[in-house]
Amino acid sequence: MSPKITTELLKQLRQVMKSPKYVQEPVQAYIVPSGDAHQSEYIAPCDCRRAFISGFDGSAGTAIVTEQHAAMWTDGRYFLQAAHQMDNNWTLMKMGLKDTPTQEDWLVSVLPEGSKVGVDPFIIPADQWKRMSKALRSAGHDLVPVKENLIDTIWTDCPQRPCKPLITLDPSYTGVSWRDKIVALRSKMAERKVLWFVVTALDEVAWLFNLRGSDVEYNPVFFAYAVIGMNTIRLFIDGDRMMDPAVREHLQLDSTLEPEFKIQVMPYGSILSELQAVGAGLSPKEKVWLSDKASYALTEAIPKAYRYLTPYTPICIAKAVKNALETEGMRRAHIKDAVALCELFNWLEKEVVPKGTVTEIIAADKAEEFRSQQKDFVELSFATISSTGPNGAIIHYKPVPETNRTLSVNEIYLLDSGAQYKDGTTDVTRTMHFGIPSAYEKECFTYVLKGHIAVSAAIFPNGTKGHLLDSFARSALWDCGLDYLHGTGHGVGSFLNVHEGPCGISYKTFADEPLEAGMIVSDEPGYYEDGSFGVRIENVVLVIPAETKYNFKNRGSLTFEPLTLVPIQTKMIDVNLLTQKECNWVNDYHQKCREVIGAELERQGRHEALRWLIQETEPLIRVQ
Amino acid sequence: MSPKITTELLKQLRQVMKSPKYVQEPVQAYIVPSGDAHQSEYIAPCDCRRAFISGFDGSAGTAIVTEQHAAMWTDGRYFLQAAHQMDNNWTLMKMGLKDTPTQEDWLVSVLPEGSKVGVDPFIIPADQWKRMSKALRSAGHDLVPVKENLIDTIWTDCPQRPCKPLITLDPSYTGVSWRDKIVALRSKMAERKVLWFVVTALDEVAWLFNLRGSDVEYNPVFFAYAVIGMNTIRLFIDGDRMMDPAVREHLQLDSTLEPEFKIQVMPYGSILSELQAVGAGLSPKEKVWLSDKASYALTEAIPKAYRYLTPYTPICIAKAVKNALETEGMRRAHIKDAVALCELFNWLEKEVVPKGTVTEIIAADKAEEFRSQQKDFVELSFATISSTGPNGAIIHYKPVPETNRTLSVNEIYLLDSGAQYKDGTTDVTRTMHFGIPSAYEKECFTYVLKGHIAVSAAIFPNGTKGHLLDSFARSALWDCGLDYLHGTGHGVGSFLNVHEGPCGISYKTFADEPLEAGMIVSDEPGYYEDGSFGVRIENVVLVIPAETKYNFKNRGSLTFEPLTLVPIQTKMIDVNLLTQKECNWVNDYHQKCREVIGAELERQGRHEALRWLIQETEPLIRVQ
Repeated sequence: MSPKITTELLKQLRQVMKSPKYVQEPVQAYIVPSGDAHQSEYIAPCDCRRAFISGFDGSAGTAIVTEQHAAMWTDGRYFLQAAHQMDNNWTLMKMGLKDTPTQEDWLVSVLPEGSKVGVDPFIIPADQWKRMSKALRSAGHDLVPVKENLIDTIWTDCPQRPCKPLITLDPSYTGVSWRDKIVALRSKMAERKVLWFVVTALDEVAWLFNLRGSDVEYNPVFFAYAVIGMNTIRLFIDGDRMMDPAVREHLQLDSTLEPEFKIQVMPYGSILSELQAVGAGLSPKEKVWLSDKASYALTEAIPKAYRYLTPYTPICIAKAVKNALETEGMRRAHIKDAVALCELFNWLEKEVVPKGTVTEIIAADKAEEFRSQQKDFVELSFATISSTGPNGAIIHYKPVPETNRTLSVNEIYLLDSGAQYKDGTTDVTRTMHFGIPSAYEKECFTYVLKGHIAVSAAIFPNGTKGHLLDSFARSALWDCGLDYLHGTGHGVGSFLNVHEGPCGISYKTFADEPLEAGMIVSDEPGYYEDGSFGVRIENVVLVIPAETKYNFKNRGSLTFEPLTLVPIQTKMIDVNLLTQKECNWVNDYHQKCREVIGAELERQGRHEALRWLIQETEPLIRVQ
Repeated sequence: MSPKITTELLKQLRQVMKSPKYVQEPVQAYIVPSGDAHQSEYIAPCDCRRAFISGFDGSAGTAIVTEQHAAMWTDGRYFLQAAHQMDNNWTLMKMGLKDTPTQEDWLVSVLPEGSKVGVDPFIIPADQWKRMSKALRSAGHDLVPVKENLIDTIWTDCPQRPCKPLITLDPSYTGVSWRDKIVALRSKMAERKVLWFVVTALDEVAWLFNLRGSDVEYNPVFFAYAVIGMNTIRLFIDGDRMMDPAVREHLQLDSTLEPEFKIQVMPYGSILSELQAVGAGLSPKEKVWLSDKASYALTEAIPKAYRYLTPYTPICIAKAVKNALETEGMRRAHIKDAVALCELFNWLEKEVVPKGTVTEIIAADKAEEFRSQQKDFVELSFATISSTGPNGAIIHYKPVPETNRTLSVNEIYLLDSGAQYKDGTTDVTRTMHFGIPSAYEKECFTYVLKGHIAVSAAIFPNGTKGHLLDSFARSALWDCGLDYLHGTGHGVGSFLNVHEGPCGISYKTFADEPLEAGMIVSDEPGYYEDGSFGVRIENVVLVIPAETKYNFKNRGSLTFEPLTLVPIQTKMIDVNLLTQKECNWVNDYHQKCREVIGAELERQGRHEALRWLIQETEPLIRVQ
C-alpha cells in the first residue's frame, strides 16, 4: 500500500473553504465525517469523501482540514492502515490513547480566535453537532453548516449515487404488509402524541415498505427517505425505480386507495424543503418524531419546540423483533448457509491437506460460490474475513493480494462470513485446524467455546439488557488472564443489514435495548494472539422464551436458540476443560446439525459434504 | 402506624409560599427534596424536612406542594410505608410504575400558566436543578431558588443542627497525614489545571482532614465544607469544636506552618459568601473544581465559565482505594465483628431453640451489645435489619414494636448489621434457620450462595467496572427463574459511610468507576419471597491482584478477598446443588474463619462461641 498524495487536493479544498461561491464567510476548518446522509455504517462509493480527501478508507474516521493542518481521527483497529494510506500532509490522531486530543480540543488549540468551522449539515448527526457546537462556542468559535459539500466541489470524478432496481418482498417473506406496518407506526405515533415521523435510516425505509435494494454493497438498501403523517405517506426516492410495474403494484401506486395509504413519491433531494414546509405548518403541541442520530440538516428543518427526538425509533425496535415468518425465513437461510459451509470445509480439507494450493482469497471465493448455489441467494452480507495464522489475529481482516496467505496444515484458519438470502441474513465464524493443533491452541479455543456456550445456554429474565450477558462470554478466558477486545454480539437484520440496533451483547452499554423473544443477535467471543493466530466461534442466535422451574414475579425468562447449524471443530476442543453440561451442549448442538443440515444435504444430493458433516459431529466423550 | 395529620402544616406552608417576607414573588409550587446541603444519604434530624411536612420518613422521597395539591414521589421500597404514614392531603406517586408522571410532567399538568416553582438552592443538587429547570422553562414556568428554607420557617420545634465533638485519627489509622492528602489533591488539581477545589460531601471533608464526628447517626461525619486552593486551606465548621486541644494539635492550628498548610477556620454558614468572593476574583482560564452533585447554591457561586464539574471528585476516588494501613484496620475491624457475631449466633441458638423468648429487637440489641464489647467500637454503621419469617422479605426492614416478631425454630432469620470501629467499618448479612429448613428454603439459599461465590471467586481484568460482575451473582437464580431486585454490592468506607462511591456491583451502570486493587465492596446477593422469607448472604470483600496462568496485554487481573469471616450456615446448603469448586470455596472459607476468628475467640477467652464456630465450620462433603 502506498499513501495517496493529497497535496493538490488539500490545496483545492483550502481554496473552496474561502470561496464565496460555496461559503458565506470563509471557514477556517472543515470537517469531513465518515458517514452518509443516513448515518449508515456501510456507505456507497460516492459517499466515501473522507477516503477521497485523505486516502484512508477504513470504516471509521473523521478528517479535519484547517489552513495549516490536516488531521485524521480513527480508532485502534485502523492505526496501521491509516498510517499506511495517508501521506505526510496528514497527522494521525489515535483515538483511545491518553494523549490524543478530542476533535474539539484540537480545533480550539489550532484555530485563530473567532474562527468558523464548517461541516456538511446532511452528514453530521444532530447529537454530534450539538456536542461539537457547544464546545466550539464556549471557546469563541462557531460551527457553521456549509450547504454544498466542499469535497464534492473538488471531486471531479466522483462516482454517481447508485440508483439500482428494487426488490419487492411479499408478506410470505415479511409476515406483515407495509400497510399494516404503517398502521402500527401510526399507533405508536398516537401513543406519543406526535403527528409526523421522519424515516432517515436506510434499513428503516426498506423495512417499512417491504422493499430491498442494492445501492450499498452487502446491505440490501436503497437511497430514500420517508415522512409518515397520520394521513399521508411521502416517499423520497430517485430514478426510474418507481416505473417498475412490480414496485408500482407492490406499493399500490395505481390503485384507488383510502387516502391515508396513498403513497406520494417525491424526489430524493426534496426531503429538506418538504420537511421545512411540514415544520412551518405546525401548530403548538404538534410534534415531529426523529431519531436523535438524524442529520443536523433534517433536524433543523423542524423548529426546536416541535421536535420529538429519541435514540431508537419505533421502526428500529419493531424491526428488531422478528415475527414468525421472518424467523422461519432466517431458519431457512441458515440451513442453506450451513449446507454451503459444509461443502466448503469438506472441500478445504481435501484441498488443503494434500495439496496446499488454497489461499485465503481462493477460500473466500469458494465460500461465495457455494453460497450462490443456494436458493434465494442475493449477495454476501459483508466482506468475507478469510484469515490464516497471524492474519487471524487481525479482527477486521480482509484478504488482499499483498497479505494473502496459503492455508496450511500448520496454522489455524478463521472464516467469518455470511450472506443475504431473500429469506434471511447470515453471519457465522468457524475456526479450524487442518493439521494437528497444539495444546495451547486447543486450550484457547476451548475457553472461547466455553464462553460461547455460556451465552448461548444462558437463561435470564425477560427485559434483561444485553450488556448483562457479556461477562458470561469472558469468564473462562478471564480465569486464565485472557480476554478479547470486542463486544460479544450484535443485532442481525432479516434480509437487511448484518449489523443492526437496538440490541446487542457488549461490555459497552450503548445500543442496548432490553432483549425480548424474537430478537436475533450474534454470539461471537474470541481470542487473538498478535502475530500468531485468532480464534472466534460465532453463531447467530434467536431469543426465545425459556421454561424454568420457578417464575419470579411472573416475569418470564428467556434464552437463545442457535440458528447457525455448522459443526464446531471437535479436534480443537480440549474435552477435559469442559464441564459435563458444556460437553452435553456440544453434543446436542452437533446432533441438531446432523438432523437438520444432514437432511438438507441429503435432499440436495451433496453426499460428500454429508459424510464430512457426520464425521465432524461425532459425540465428544468426557473422561471423568 | 397512624398517618401524620398535615392539614394545618400545609396551610402554613402555602401561606409562606406567598409571603413577601420569604419570597420575592409568590411561588405556585414548592419542592422539598430528601437530602441535606451535602447531598448525604443519611441525614440529621434537623434536615428531615420532607418527613416533617408529610409524615413519610423513608430514606428516599421528594415532596411537592402546590396551592391545590401535595404529592410525594418515592420508589418501590417505600410504597407501603409512605401510604401508611401520610394522610389524605397527600397523593403518593409510585416511581417506576408506568403511569406515574415525573415531577416535571406532573408540575406542568397542574400549574397555572407562567408559574414559579420554588426550591431551597442548598438542598437541590446542581445536576437535578439543571434538568428540572429546563423542563419547566420549556413549558413556560420558572424554577426559582428560595433563599430561606420554607419548611424551616414553619417548623417551630425543629431540632438544632448537631455539633458534636470530633475524633482525630492519626496516621497509624489512616496511613496518610492530612497534609499529604492535601499535597496529593493539589497535584490532581494541577493536572486538571484548576486553582480551587470545593469539598462538599461530608465524608470527603472527614477523610481529607483525618477527622471523624457524630453529627449524623451511623455515619462518623460532621457538618463542614472545605475550600482548597493551591496555597490556602479553608475549613468551614461551627461550634467550639475547634477549641478542643486535640483537634488544634491534629490540624496544627497553633503551629508555625508553611502558609500553604495553614488552615483558616471559618463559620459553616459563610461558605456561600466566601465562594462568591473566590468566584469574583478569578481571571480567565482559572477554574474551580466541584462535584456535579454539589448544591445549586454553591455551584452558582462560581460563574459558569470558571466551573470544572465532574461526577466523581479526586477525593472520592482516592478515598475508595484503601492503603495498607486502612486495609489492615478493616481486617482488624472484621475480626472483632466476627467475634461479636459468633457470640450472638451461639447465644441465639441457645435461647431460641429451647426458650423462644428472643424477638427481632432483642436480637438486634444483643448484636449491638456484643459489638460494643470490642476494642475501638464507636457505633453501629446502619440500623440493624433483624428480621424473621415474612419480615425477611422486606429488604430494608427495621424492627419496630408494631412489627416485632419472635424468632422461632420454624422460620428463617436474616440479620444484616454492621458497626463503626475506629479502625474500620463492617457490614455483614447472615441467614440462618434454628430448626429444620425445608428443601425449598435450602434450594433458594444455595442459589444465593452460588451467586455469592461466583462474585467472590471471580477473576477479571484490571479496570473492569463493577456492573460487569453483577450477572455472575444472579446466574444460578436465573437458571431457575428466580432473581432479586437490588444491586449486588456497594463501596464501603474505612471508618466512614457504610455506603460510598464511586464503585459498586450492580446491573445499574451509574456509580461505576473501574475496580482496582485496594477498593472494598460488599457482595450480597439475595432472594426474597413476599410474605414468607428472605435470604441474603453478604461479605465485605477487598479487591486484590489475582495470579493467572496467562496475562493478556499485560493488563493484570483482580479478584476478591473476603474480609468478613463469619460462618455461612451449612445446614441451609443443599450440597448436591454445589459444584466441587463451590464446595471447596465454602470449605476453604470456613477453614479461614476457624483459623483467624478461632484464634481471636481463644485470645478473648470466649470458649462457648469458639465451640460454636468449630461446629459451624465442619467441612461440607459432596457426594458424587
